Amino acid sequence: MSTDRLIYLPLGGAGEIGMNAYVYGYGPAGKERLILVDLGVAFPDMDTSPGVDLIFPDMAWLIERADRLDGIFITHAHEDHVGAIGHLWSQLRAPVYCRAFTANIARRKMEEQGQPKAEVREIDALPHMVDAGPFRVGYLPTSHSIPETSAVVIDTPAGRVVHTGDFKLDKTPILGAPFDEAAWAEVARLGVLALACDSTNVFSAHPGRSEATLAPDIAELVQNAPGMVVATTFASNVARLKTLADAGIAAGRSVVLLGRAMHRMVRAAEDTGVIDSFPPTIPVEQAGQVPRENLMLIVTGSQGERRAASAQLARGKYLGLEMKEGDLFLFSSKTIPGNERGVLKIINAFSEKGVDVVDDSAGRYHVSGHANRPDLEFVHDLMNPQIVVPMHGEHRHLREHTKLAQARGRAGVLAPNGTMLELTGNAPRVVEYVETGRVYLDGSVQVGALDGVVRERIRMALNGHVMVNVLIDEDDEPLGEPWCEAMGLPEKGRSGAPLTDVLEADIDRMLGRADDDLLVDDDKLTEEIRRIARNTANTEIGRKPEITVVISRLSN
Amino acid sequence: MSTDRLIYLPLGGAGEIGMNAYVYGYGPAGKERLILVDLGVAFPDMDTSPGVDLIFPDMAWLIERADRLDGIFITHAHEDHVGAIGHLWSQLRAPVYCRAFTANIARRKMEEQGQPKAEVREIDALPHMVDAGPFRVGYLPTSHSIPETSAVVIDTPAGRVVHTGDFKLDKTPILGAPFDEAAWAEVARLGVLALACDSTNVFSAHPGRSEATLAPDIAELVQNAPGMVVATTFASNVARLKTLADAGIAAGRSVVLLGRAMHRMVRAAEDTGVIDSFPPTIPVEQAGQVPRENLMLIVTGSQGERRAASAQLARGKYLGLEMKEGDLFLFSSKTIPGNERGVLKIINAFSEKGVDVVDDSAGRYHVSGHANRPDLEFVHDLMNPQIVVPMHGEHRHLREHTKLAQARGRAGVLAPNGTMLELTGNAPRVVEYVETGRVYLDGSVQVGALDGVVRERIRMALNGHVMVNVLIDEDDEPLGEPWCEAMGLPEKGRSGAPLTDVLEADIDRMLGRADDDLLVDDDKLTEEIRRIARNTANTEIGRKPEITVVISRLSN
Repeated sequence: MSTDRLIYLPLGGAGEIGMNAYVYGYGPAGKERLILVDLGVAFPDMDTSPGVDLIFPDMAWLIERADRLDGIFITHAHEDHVGAIGHLWSQLRAPVYCRAFTANIARRKMEEQGQPKAEVREIDALPHMVDAGPFRVGYLPTSHSIPETSAVVIDTPAGRVVHTGDFKLDKTPILGAPFDEAAWAEVARLGVLALACDSTNVFSAHPGRSEATLAPDIAELVQNAPGMVVATTFASNVARLKTLADAGIAAGRSVVLLGRAMHRMVRAAEDTGVIDSFPPTIPVEQAGQVPRENLMLIVTGSQGERRAASAQLARGKYLGLEMKEGDLFLFSSKTIPGNERGVLKIINAFSEKGVDVVDDSAGRYHVSGHANRPDLEFVHDLMNPQIVVPMHGEHRHLREHTKLAQARGRAGVLAPNGTMLELTGNAPRVVEYVETGRVYLDGSVQVGALDGVVRERIRMALNGHVMVNVLIDEDDEPLGEPWCEAMGLPEKGRSGAPLTDVLEADIDRMLGRADDDLLVDDDKLTEEIRRIARNTANTEIGRKPEITVVISRLSN
Repeated sequence: MSTDRLIYLPLGGAGEIGMNAYVYGYGPAGKERLILVDLGVAFPDMDTSPGVDLIFPDMAWLIERADRLDGIFITHAHEDHVGAIGHLWSQLRAPVYCRAFTANIARRKMEEQGQPKAEVREIDALPHMVDAGPFRVGYLPTSHSIPETSAVVIDTPAGRVVHTGDFKLDKTPILGAPFDEAAWAEVARLGVLALACDSTNVFSAHPGRSEATLAPDIAELVQNAPGMVVATTFASNVARLKTLADAGIAAGRSVVLLGRAMHRMVRAAEDTGVIDSFPPTIPVEQAGQVPRENLMLIVTGSQGERRAASAQLARGKYLGLEMKEGDLFLFSSKTIPGNERGVLKIINAFSEKGVDVVDDSAGRYHVSGHANRPDLEFVHDLMNPQIVVPMHGEHRHLREHTKLAQARGRAGVLAPNGTMLELTGNAPRVVEYVETGRVYLDGSVQVGALDGVVRERIRMALNGHVMVNVLIDEDDEPLGEPWCEAMGLPEKGRSGAPLTDVLEADIDRMLGRADDDLLVDDDKLTEEIRRIARNTANTEIGRKPEITVVISRLSN
């Protein structure tokens, strides 16, 4: 005899900052109707995922239950919230609900992957709500670092859940609606069962700062710059782009937007009415005619991405533009952990050109888009939920946020990816652990993170690769000499002879002595060749490479 | 007609933080007698140098002139100053002069590489000086983050040069001599021609803090911890190890040192009289008998190194010890840029165990070993050199430090790696640019960074690797079918068939149609196979792998 229950299950985002995907369900155990909040990506790195294009949460659990999925709700258009929609939608096939700006971006992502963009349904914010199975769902506007970010209000038969998405308390956000305390309080008026809450900045002790606080410092910096000014930030932070462009124009500069993402985001903001019109810019083709002290570029690449405009300008001439001694480059951004080396490389390259680089180390040219610790406390109290479920964070963030909630007398629950919580009943409890993980988009193929594909690549990168090719004739005798090719290994080692020559000689010697038992058995022979090759390489060059052995047998 | 000149030539360290190696020379142009200050390593990373063991500065310029090298002076025992001595000494063969603690470490490095440790000559600090060609050289003690760090005072016929090495102004350094302003002033009394000066912290606006300031906060933290305490820092910071151990003992805890580097450094400090005796510790084998609230471990791995004690403890049981809910882990260290991901991985793993992690984000548990901007200004003024040559820094540090020197009315010279400066004459000037770079220790082989070995590894990591094997018979006809092996690639792609099957079929089809011109020409055939394989892979899996083709011809 099962009674209906309300469940929460993070499949991504609760254990990393990235690839958000949160399932809510209501119904009899195992037969809940489901909705999904966000479907984002994470980004690969050379250490753990070389060659990978994008990282998705492993949605296997939900894909198996796609027939019970009644809707997908996207809180905002950051890649870690919407980036996987085009790639995974065909396996989920539920309507995608977004507000206008997010819908604009989500549709493009559907189109790029050949999915039906009509499945993205634009809806208004509260008081409008949509029915999705047993749920009634609405968007509660909030402030963040991209236009039209929303919390999700989920009304369930068991009570109201508020899923904050990413948010900050910004009453002067430059663009879009300010954080509206009264609207949030109204949502909470009749009681909130659970608050699933952004944990990103739980370790930041001071109240968050408003986007508007940056404008005077940025304006002053641009005003006083003697040469060309180039500024970078996240393309999706349209408010920041506006602040930067306003500063340029106030200083009598022509403003150029550089980078496809910049243009796409500004256009989306204009098309959806987020901004009436962006400050006037000139096309990059005209920039050459403007004296450099009257020019300001706003460019992509705040994280040191190798192909973005910032890196191109650091390397040299880009689209006819070149930075010079006395120019200024502004990082109006923070460096995401892991990107430090790439960013420093750019800063040093600019240093070599005599370009002055200003970053946010003094805290004047960037503000975070996430609620800091005191802001979280404020929202806990404002919404006064029975349960706080920290999400959007690494484990350390979730744990700290859980303790924060508990310290304020509420049921805080630590629920990393795969933890299915039941929110109905006297207290929240874990009812199941679901297998979760990562799926790599690798070229055009989706591969499991544990499939070994990437592990093999890492092994080749660390150890190099030797291919050994042996011919065996009709009488099971070696034909000619073995052939070795090495990739990613020093040409010569201890003996001074080419490594492949030494390998071939040692394998040939072994083959000459090998008995029939060995020569007729591909597996044994491969193993023996591998052993010899490893040992020889270790003696010659002090490392054991990956070895691939190909045995070709004639007419067997 | 050449007159004698004094030259400065950084071969490493002026353009990165790492692999320090600075040449000074005096004599007729092109015939200067030379000394080398420091011979350090840099560390590889997965992004740019996967599989590499260590990075050395390219010393080719000096190796070609080794007959003119009169001495190697090591300022202190950090890896980026002494780490390459054992690996490169045999190509330089000059006496190595160090103070006692540094000599202890340098001798070990010589021994490990089979070099004569007697070539490491222990010398006292000033007033003692040694003759090295036209130079008289002495060590001026300073404070840093490892015992017995010294500046190098180089008396030349053209005047006195002071090479600061790494330093900070610490009057209470816990261990070793405090920064002795009077001694530095005495060195400068008769005038300093040039000051080659540490640039690491030129962007740090506040005066540096003393090592001694940490003791009360660390003691309080350890005193109040309810469970086991584990602290990590750089093993070479013996003063910090002492502060940590003292805090443990004051809190009634038994202290365990974990990690070979810890023991080695403490023993070197005791053997050379840097410390009379380290606070009492117990062997790790006895730790199991101590209640966890009475235990404190001091462990290696402050940078998240995968094999160090900190990472082992984060993963689970290590040497019979395991961290649990309520234990405390202290990073008494800062994270070096590029190591953030590794450190965060450890912090999150501890979070999963319920261990509380404290780091230096509040600035209470770590101080830097380098002089900050106001400290640099103080030293510029104290030594009052005619010329300031910023070293030990990335380009951005050198540039900022040069500007700082110039702003104070001195000749600041920006001289990155390979810039040969003449310091004699009316003003310092660049007389030559020398080719510099990096040499990788790869297994047991030294390979040039630009030799392509590592580039091949990176390509395999990014693209995967396909090996194609084709047999051609005596009549130049394909024999059997081609054979493909793939490594680091998805097993199946678009068609649903195994990738290697599709590759083999497409290559086989091409071979079947190939005319004799192609089949007799290995180069052309290889190129055609490569083209087919790339195209097929791109269609199937959306990426173009590295391709190695082996053509085996029978009896040709």
